[in-house]
Amino acid sequence: MFITIEGGEGCGKTTQVGRLVSRLERSGRKALMVREPGGTRLAELVRGLLKDEREDPPCDRAELLLFLAARAQLVRNVIKPALADGAWVVSDRFCDSTFAYQGYGRGLPLDILRIANDFACDGLLPDRTVLLDVEPAVALERMRERAARTKESADRIELAGADFHARLREGFLRMAAENPGRISVVDAAGTVEEVEERIWKSLKLSV
Amino acid sequence: MFITIEGGEGCGKTTQVGRLVSRLERSGRKALMVREPGGTRLAELVRGLLKDEREDPPCDRAELLLFLAARAQLVRNVIKPALADGAWVVSDRFCDSTFAYQGYGRGLPLDILRIANDFACDGLLPDRTVLLDVEPAVALERMRERAARTKESADRIELAGADFHARLREGFLRMAAENPGRISVVDAAGTVEEVEERIWKSLKLSV
Repeated sequence: MFITIEGGEGCGKTTQVGRLVSRLERSGRKALMVREPGGTRLAELVRGLLKDEREDPPCDRAELLLFLAARAQLVRNVIKPALADGAWVVSDRFCDSTFAYQGYGRGLPLDILRIANDFACDGLLPDRTVLLDVEPAVALERMRERAARTKESADRIELAGADFHARLREGFLRMAAENPGRISVVDAAGTVEEVEERIWKSLKLSV
Repeated sequence: MFITIEGGEGCGKTTQVGRLVSRLERSGRKALMVREPGGTRLAELVRGLLKDEREDPPCDRAELLLFLAARAQLVRNVIKPALADGAWVVSDRFCDSTFAYQGYGRGLPLDILRIANDFACDGLLPDRTVLLDVEPAVALERMRERAARTKESADRIELAGADFHARLREGFLRMAAENPGRISVVDAAGTVEEVEERIWKSLKLSV
């Protein structure tokens, strides 16, 4: 089973991906955690270009193509082999982030995004997707906390304006409405434990 | 006017691009030379991933998407502004290399390549293309000479087998047959000066 956790900045995805993988393992499943962009040496190098290149930042089209290059490498070299090996794979972001960020956020045409994403994934789609939804004010507060805790400054994409982040959220919620069988919307407000419990219930697993 | 010089490894493209730009300048034209992948800081970083990443070499799909990411950045930040400024731009490789290498060479579907390439170029097509065609034996000899001269070992793509390079050549010649108005096939055997003269004549410029 291939599960993806999606949502805007500050929704708590990364924490919850780790907790979900631990819980799958405790339930006796073999589970692998990956993150996007990243998860292979090449994809992590591409991640660096996407997050930290300030001197010659990628234009919108280059940004999309770099995200998809990293995805193609991750799918082929990590996700597909793990699934073939019987593992559960949980990804911190995947294709819905592409439609939300590059489509709804940057305004690139969704039909082209679908064709290019299908090509990059070589036909792989998530079996289940959890969309962590959070009010913009809560997300901003969490991003500030994280910045204070890690002493890292926000990256190029986190720094995009409030308008951009509002379009993202609208895009994510629209995709969830269009794909009710695959995408569950989970309220990301509350404690880490509360959100973990909501995610686990939303997946309706047998054990 | 946007001119591209295409051809397989060892056809003498890079030398001839430099000579063509000088000749355009001597004829009173403002001219700019670019190379693919490359030509911007980001695109040169992507070039490094494509040429030199041996530990986690890009899979075929990631390779295509990385080439197109570099192209998107070059088109938007360098080629389109230069053309808008009245310059002639001469590129060492462009879209036909994508169809030859990733399509005919690697076997990726040509229809997807066309859609993805159009997206990366944002509608830009070369006005004129020179295909430097050379017998495989001559190309191999030139690659060996260059390796001896520069003391550089061949890169990941140059090292692909003879079958791959034969498919490339066939692909390039087929595209030339399908686009006779844009692509001129120029015999790349002979001295540098002879080939330069053939290229210049094939472009049929007024001065």
